[in-house]
Amino acid sequence: MRILLQLTYNGANFQGFQIQNEGRTVQYELERILKRMHRDFVRIHPSSRTDKGVHALCQYVHFDTHLKLTPDKWQHAFNSALPDDIYITAVREIPETFHSRYDCIGKAYRYKIYQAPHRDVMKTGLETWYPYDLDLVKMNEAAQAFLGTHDFTSFCSAKTEIDNKERTIYSFTVTKTRDGYDFHVIGSGFLYNMVRIMVQHLLDIGQGRRQDDTTALLAARDRKKAGKTAPAEGLYLEKIYLTPEELAEDIPPGTKIITKNTPKSLTTAPGML
Amino acid sequence: MRILLQLTYNGANFQGFQIQNEGRTVQYELERILKRMHRDFVRIHPSSRTDKGVHALCQYVHFDTHLKLTPDKWQHAFNSALPDDIYITAVREIPETFHSRYDCIGKAYRYKIYQAPHRDVMKTGLETWYPYDLDLVKMNEAAQAFLGTHDFTSFCSAKTEIDNKERTIYSFTVTKTRDGYDFHVIGSGFLYNMVRIMVQHLLDIGQGRRQDDTTALLAARDRKKAGKTAPAEGLYLEKIYLTPEELAEDIPPGTKIITKNTPKSLTTAPGML
Repeated sequence: MRILLQLTYNGANFQGFQIQNEGRTVQYELERILKRMHRDFVRIHPSSRTDKGVHALCQYVHFDTHLKLTPDKWQHAFNSALPDDIYITAVREIPETFHSRYDCIGKAYRYKIYQAPHRDVMKTGLETWYPYDLDLVKMNEAAQAFLGTHDFTSFCSAKTEIDNKERTIYSFTVTKTRDGYDFHVIGSGFLYNMVRIMVQHLLDIGQGRRQDDTTALLAARDRKKAGKTAPAEGLYLEKIYLTPEELAEDIPPGTKIITKNTPKSLTTAPGML
Repeated sequence: MRILLQLTYNGANFQGFQIQNEGRTVQYELERILKRMHRDFVRIHPSSRTDKGVHALCQYVHFDTHLKLTPDKWQHAFNSALPDDIYITAVREIPETFHSRYDCIGKAYRYKIYQAPHRDVMKTGLETWYPYDLDLVKMNEAAQAFLGTHDFTSFCSAKTEIDNKERTIYSFTVTKTRDGYDFHVIGSGFLYNMVRIMVQHLLDIGQGRRQDDTTALLAARDRKKAGKTAPAEGLYLEKIYLTPEELAEDIPPGTKIITKNTPKSLTTAPGML
């Protein structure tokens, strides 16, 4: 049977989601527990592979198993064996036609910056320090140019290996928080470093270091013309949308939802949260 | 000349303040920078040696140097070379008769717990998860029994090597926060694990697992009669008092202040914050 885990992790002390030759990874921690339970290697499949230092408020992984455990027992088995910076928030059995990556139709990311005269060591790894004056209106105006379907070649790492760089952004807002700003973006999917490059672009505009050339930059399809990549520490994978219903709830009414792979199995199944 | 640094650090990824054979320590990070600047070893002296995992919102260290740098230059030299989880908040030159440890006349600690149905991975290393109902009134009542001068043998680690276990508590309050409780204690000084044992004692009382036997426990002078030691992650060294004036501001008016070592040099010098 196929099991879907919903989990959250603090990325500060991980080398990212995916197993590496060296250093802690979320995948290693999960597969280590499954191996012990199955006395055999069991591969997990995530909805998204987050980078080094990136956090997840909601991530999904699935795996196939012959063990007959209830969702509660799975959750307890994981949470009692996982380190303090990973936590399984929900577990359910899913049809074997469902795949956590291919059936993901959208994702939401949040990027957090704080402003203070000096670095706050208690926020190290959790938020990015950005002590410059920012224009909230300008940042929100520029963010609107990302909405819709575009080729994001200018806004992804030059190392991106995927060919199709077209993605759809459904919503992009910047809001003032108690001591900084939150950047919140929902899209069909995101290329390598895409959120962090878009955020730095908006920061450069908000700081007045750059005119709003977002539309021209999208058209240029040239990574070198965009700015730097914001640090990983402020980035949170906030939500993963497995059904159009869930996604529709979080984006403006009437927005057309792109579903490359029509969700086969979960269209009528509500999210787990 | 003698230089005093005021610093803050996030203890989550340190093996404590003091240099160890293995693992990151705050002392190592500071002395590493001084060694590079002086081309020679320079010893630093902290006001307090915090344990593994314990944070500092305000810590002091002093060292002697022949280098003639302004306070601003010292601060910049350290902050540009220190890792992200240590930050120098102020620097000043002090008389060579002043010693950051011997001239410390009081300390304030804060202990943070949060309550939630499940562990919050973003608070890992920063606050202690304590998902049980607590009685705020009972905890504050019990905390009052700690006020004044007592032998704290029952409330310090059995491994404590110091002979005189008499300490004075000036203030001890428990307050409700947005999603948990803060324990705030000010005293003349604290023995090994003393704050964490006192906090766990109050948690046990607040949870109804223990009757308020604080006064009897103090009289018993037996560590085995008290409860467990709360985890390090929720503990913050919040303030260090170098002058009676600073301390008097934070404790009830008229409280008698104990000054074993009469502050020789800083009585008229205000705190650096």
